[in-house]
Amino acid sequence: MHFQVIDGGVTAATGFQAADATAGIKKNGQPDMAMLYSSSPCRAAGTFTTNVVKAAPVKWDQDLVFHQPYVQAVVCNSGTANACTGQEGMNACRETAQEAAVFLHIPETAVLVASTGVIGQQLPMEKIKQGISLLTDRLSDSREAAVKAAQAILTTDTVKKEAAVTVNLGGKTVHIGGMCKGSGMIHPNMCTMLSFVTTDACISKELLQKALSQTVEDTYNMISVDGDTSTNDTVLLLANAMAENPEITEENEDYQKFLEALYYVNETLAKSIAGDGEGCTALFEAKIIGAADKQQAVTLAKSIVSSNLTKAAIYGHDANWGRILCAMGYSGAKFDPEKVNLFIESAAGKLQLMKNGTATAYSEEEATQILSETSVTAIADIKMGTAEATAWGCDLTHEYVSINADYRS
Amino acid sequence: MHFQVIDGGVTAATGFQAADATAGIKKNGQPDMAMLYSSSPCRAAGTFTTNVVKAAPVKWDQDLVFHQPYVQAVVCNSGTANACTGQEGMNACRETAQEAAVFLHIPETAVLVASTGVIGQQLPMEKIKQGISLLTDRLSDSREAAVKAAQAILTTDTVKKEAAVTVNLGGKTVHIGGMCKGSGMIHPNMCTMLSFVTTDACISKELLQKALSQTVEDTYNMISVDGDTSTNDTVLLLANAMAENPEITEENEDYQKFLEALYYVNETLAKSIAGDGEGCTALFEAKIIGAADKQQAVTLAKSIVSSNLTKAAIYGHDANWGRILCAMGYSGAKFDPEKVNLFIESAAGKLQLMKNGTATAYSEEEATQILSETSVTAIADIKMGTAEATAWGCDLTHEYVSINADYRS
Repeated sequence: MHFQVIDGGVTAATGFQAADATAGIKKNGQPDMAMLYSSSPCRAAGTFTTNVVKAAPVKWDQDLVFHQPYVQAVVCNSGTANACTGQEGMNACRETAQEAAVFLHIPETAVLVASTGVIGQQLPMEKIKQGISLLTDRLSDSREAAVKAAQAILTTDTVKKEAAVTVNLGGKTVHIGGMCKGSGMIHPNMCTMLSFVTTDACISKELLQKALSQTVEDTYNMISVDGDTSTNDTVLLLANAMAENPEITEENEDYQKFLEALYYVNETLAKSIAGDGEGCTALFEAKIIGAADKQQAVTLAKSIVSSNLTKAAIYGHDANWGRILCAMGYSGAKFDPEKVNLFIESAAGKLQLMKNGTATAYSEEEATQILSETSVTAIADIKMGTAEATAWGCDLTHEYVSINADYRS
Repeated sequence: MHFQVIDGGVTAATGFQAADATAGIKKNGQPDMAMLYSSSPCRAAGTFTTNVVKAAPVKWDQDLVFHQPYVQAVVCNSGTANACTGQEGMNACRETAQEAAVFLHIPETAVLVASTGVIGQQLPMEKIKQGISLLTDRLSDSREAAVKAAQAILTTDTVKKEAAVTVNLGGKTVHIGGMCKGSGMIHPNMCTMLSFVTTDACISKELLQKALSQTVEDTYNMISVDGDTSTNDTVLLLANAMAENPEITEENEDYQKFLEALYYVNETLAKSIAGDGEGCTALFEAKIIGAADKQQAVTLAKSIVSSNLTKAAIYGHDANWGRILCAMGYSGAKFDPEKVNLFIESAAGKLQLMKNGTATAYSEEEATQILSETSVTAIADIKMGTAEATAWGCDLTHEYVSINADYRS
């Protein structure tokens, strides 16, 4: 491990500022806009929802990330998703970027936008514009500004989600810090939610994108709250080079160290989304070991954390291992059920529930104790090889249903 | 329409008898065993779960249906699934068949078995054997016997599920009648639950299987309660030829009439499963029209009824059409979101929510009224062709979570 975990978020990296504002988009009067700004232009990388239905901000950002050499700011609102809003929604993205560009004295093509919330409503542009004015006044590189920005992007999330590390690259201290929001409509097929990661590393645009894409596969793409892949999923990674490390232009040792550090930030953020899934009471991790290849392990692990029945059993602290094996069975991956060993593990201990496809004589009491923790893991050994994968989800609760039965009110 | 709907179930067809018994397998003292018996040997057709993890009775029945010329009885228990039970579970199937064979004076290879309930527990063979003794004593071709058998196969279902029709084939009145159970772990990828259909039609074994497989695709395989494909899914169709119609040996007019009648029975049973999904308060139908081909329509319709977020919105009578479009978007099928027209319909009326991918100025009040019925339909026109498909599901409720948080207790 070549990196150090530090307390921080999107302002951890040199040159990055953040701000929050209450623009009146959310009905509950909570902060609902955030801004990120870098004093130097940034190379940008991004991964976006694979949903055929893409929100306007996703289209706007894809264009900028993949066709503009530099970006310098992000404007985010929570409360309305600007999805299924047609040409008016695209115009709203441009107007938002234009407004921020004027205040920040940068080109509109350097302003990324992001939205999360109810699908189908147009952005309230007057509120957005007032919000941008407030945001630019408040920009700060303080720890507090990062925390407030992390809070302002939340919707039904219950806790803010941040992570930050430092890593030494070529004698220079490089920072990577991020914030994200998740909660519902979480079933990444790319990523699934909004995540913003900033770094002062100097790295080529090509390798920045490669590092992001590589880490997203094993982090954001391995979480599921409800199987619904959002229209707005966006992960943005901005690098402003202000750490002055020797530019990373090939997959050398510095790249590997950067990748490792970025992986940690993204895994931490992804797990925090799964652990704060709508209405959930526990983070549920599924680990497949002994797989023939990575894809098989990924398919099986994701099927387990996506199973409503398994998730309801986790909520009930019920060691219903039959549902776990069942979810593996319908995943599409081939394996021999009569070879499977299954374990559960948490802070309260580890227990084998199944050996070679049939139940062990385990203690139900011990199993319930293990499943009563706020973070529980199921481990399945399918004895076909050495590949592994881990997926993260959460339990399915009464509260999830309550939140989503009338989300728009 | 060449058939007539009648009141009836598995004893509607000539020569079929049914019985129920309380063998003490269920903890609540409810009836938990059922038997079907035909006075003449039957040709059998079947469709079974595609889950890699197949329960012992599924393996037993596959062997009989595909390798034995005739069967004559079915023994079913509810309460324990006999899945993930290894060799002991397979032995239990054989012992069950042997025991019934002795009482019924037929070969053990003529006795199909079926189980539903908790995964991973061995069948209590003493109770099963006592149950078989009770069942054979009670066999009757009465309407009441069919009703009681239909009740005995239920688990968390709240209502029995039966359907029956008559159809004239070559001057003879042919009956088709069935019963099924569903409730949870319902996401057919073949079928998903137990369904038993009996007929006195005379039809070749090959065409009997073909008719079943054809109708299953558009009926049982189009329902979803929770996305979990069970280890025990079984549809059995038994034909004893006692109606004495001219044997159907080719896909002639009689075959088409038989197919139409069988389709009705299977669709009715499948819809009754979706409408009685665990904890649900409404049957939710999704219909795709204007699709380029059938597969595209099927993929989109199933994705809508499988979406947790859409199902929770239906529970809340919330016209959250964004979630429906979102679920279509991540289904894997390609379409242009900006061409989609979306409607909701129920006994309370029909309303267009979306035109060309954006919201119409519909009345929320009217929408809520339509969604407050116990059967609601979403219709999406994707304007690419003339193919259609319909899928059936249900809403996601607090009660679903309660039932499944501690199912084994």
